[in-house]
Amino acid sequence: MSVLASQDSTLLQRLDADLVEVSRLFAAELQSDLACVNELAEHAQRYHGKMLRPMLVLATAMAVEPTGETTQQKHLVAAAVVEMVHMATLVHDDVLDDARMRRQGATINHLQGNEAAVMLGDYLISHAYHLCSSLGSPRVSQMIAHSTNTVCEGELLQLANRHRLDLDEPTYFKIITRKTASLCGTCCRVTAELSGCAQDVAGALYGYGETLGIAFQIIDDVLDLTGDPATVGKTLGQDLAKGKLTLPLIHAIAGSGEPGRGELIGLLRSQGDAGLSDEQAGAGASRVREILFAGDSLDYAREKAASLVERAKSGLIENLEDTPARAYLLGLADSVVTRRL
Amino acid sequence: MSVLASQDSTLLQRLDADLVEVSRLFAAELQSDLACVNELAEHAQRYHGKMLRPMLVLATAMAVEPTGETTQQKHLVAAAVVEMVHMATLVHDDVLDDARMRRQGATINHLQGNEAAVMLGDYLISHAYHLCSSLGSPRVSQMIAHSTNTVCEGELLQLANRHRLDLDEPTYFKIITRKTASLCGTCCRVTAELSGCAQDVAGALYGYGETLGIAFQIIDDVLDLTGDPATVGKTLGQDLAKGKLTLPLIHAIAGSGEPGRGELIGLLRSQGDAGLSDEQAGAGASRVREILFAGDSLDYAREKAASLVERAKSGLIENLEDTPARAYLLGLADSVVTRRL
Repeated sequence: MSVLASQDSTLLQRLDADLVEVSRLFAAELQSDLACVNELAEHAQRYHGKMLRPMLVLATAMAVEPTGETTQQKHLVAAAVVEMVHMATLVHDDVLDDARMRRQGATINHLQGNEAAVMLGDYLISHAYHLCSSLGSPRVSQMIAHSTNTVCEGELLQLANRHRLDLDEPTYFKIITRKTASLCGTCCRVTAELSGCAQDVAGALYGYGETLGIAFQIIDDVLDLTGDPATVGKTLGQDLAKGKLTLPLIHAIAGSGEPGRGELIGLLRSQGDAGLSDEQAGAGASRVREILFAGDSLDYAREKAASLVERAKSGLIENLEDTPARAYLLGLADSVVTRRL
Repeated sequence: MSVLASQDSTLLQRLDADLVEVSRLFAAELQSDLACVNELAEHAQRYHGKMLRPMLVLATAMAVEPTGETTQQKHLVAAAVVEMVHMATLVHDDVLDDARMRRQGATINHLQGNEAAVMLGDYLISHAYHLCSSLGSPRVSQMIAHSTNTVCEGELLQLANRHRLDLDEPTYFKIITRKTASLCGTCCRVTAELSGCAQDVAGALYGYGETLGIAFQIIDDVLDLTGDPATVGKTLGQDLAKGKLTLPLIHAIAGSGEPGRGELIGLLRSQGDAGLSDEQAGAGASRVREILFAGDSLDYAREKAASLVERAKSGLIENLEDTPARAYLLGLADSVVTRRL
């Protein structure tokens, strides 16, 4: 992520070293005596991407404990836990979305079938809880499990709203807050717990992570409509293909003066037809994008994300001392809206 | 289960009352503010069946603490946790098996599609860990998560061996020990932990649960070949349809003098053909059953299960005092081989 520019180099070096250790803990936890299990688990490890969630844990830890390193090992374990939870959701998401590509490579479901992908996701989530319980903190275990409860609720709410052209903004925000932002908030909250922060600081940290997570998902949804598959490295256009309405589309449908609104609704309706050929669906999706590019709905979504990022940053500035780690977290929030992948 | 005959009536009444409370805790944990989530979760609750795993927790607790009731609330929670873990595996198993029927009703995947079933399984497992963390014991959380790690390994090993006619007995036992018996052992081990049993008693209790679990799965596999769908209440013949070799088939293939061995191998090979019609597959499966009924492989499997049950019972007799609860656990072990559903 482009957060790297103008950041404290000592902090960046330590974060880099920490992420290497997080990947090591991740791989060690997944190790099995069965070759067939290790093979699958190793494939999943290629999905490590931006490592946003481990970075939230580690950078927050540095921000709240600028000098002390007594809890460092616990933060590293927590960072591996949240990455593992995230990876589990990616693997099952790819099953739900029939996605073929992830991080420039084939998905597990595409390579080995849905059955292996369902079980691999289960294996990852199980190991995430197992590793988490090694922290010896029932409070942290509860926070992680509460967050995964919430992620599942978000996914189920999204599923219940597929192909619904009347999906409104409040429901969209409820979906993405639960399926994406809750885990980001929990990354920061768990850190606060491990570092023994006061309740108000812990709450503010959760708020920063959650708000950043909402912005992150809005941009993810924009990129699914506008991104270049070669840059983003995963199957795009999945939201349209799967009947998931995201913020730009909700805005374009709701705005009565929006150019092409009538045509857009017709196109989205026909995207849900089972009888549509791949070519017809592709042509429909291209036309949807053309209409969106001609209007202001993509900008509307990007501005919403930008204003959420500003809110996330203010919360941090109000509650944390000015340290290189805080500067890093502010930059991380900015990078959420400027990213192209 | 037919364990009820000749058991202490006070104990049975308390177990009945406890199971009602377990079901209440189960339902309360799954409660969401989202209607679409509650609807799915309520459907899953119809899958409560024999409640073998909660009974293992509760009866073991009574056997090791015949008088004390100080840890009773914890045992009830633990019983709800293991039932929830088991339910999650059922829901994902039905996805893996394309099963249409479970406990006399339609499966979630059949009713609402694989996507909802994958997410419901995730929701159940997440809540199982969440409820487990409320016990405040990192050791118990670790035991439960270690067990689910092992269950996933068993499922993945089974998946890797589908359509392999050279699957041998040791690998079959490795699969069922991990996918089924590990959780049964953990039910008893968690109880020992909550009741503060000595290490050797805790080990013996794990051994009882695990050995009973292996026997249980052997009989489950026999019933998949021989059972009456109306009695068993779930889709049968799934193992053949999905290319899973189970103990009777492994024995029949391995025994060179077994009548119909050559025909059996040919039939099993052709069951794996993608081009097979439902009628052809059904006729093939019927012929497989005829061959098995003519030989001694079904008896071989049943005897194996019976001798495992005897081993499980001896372990219990050696390590626990003679109480009504111990008598119940011995009867529970017997019922594993005598059951018809």
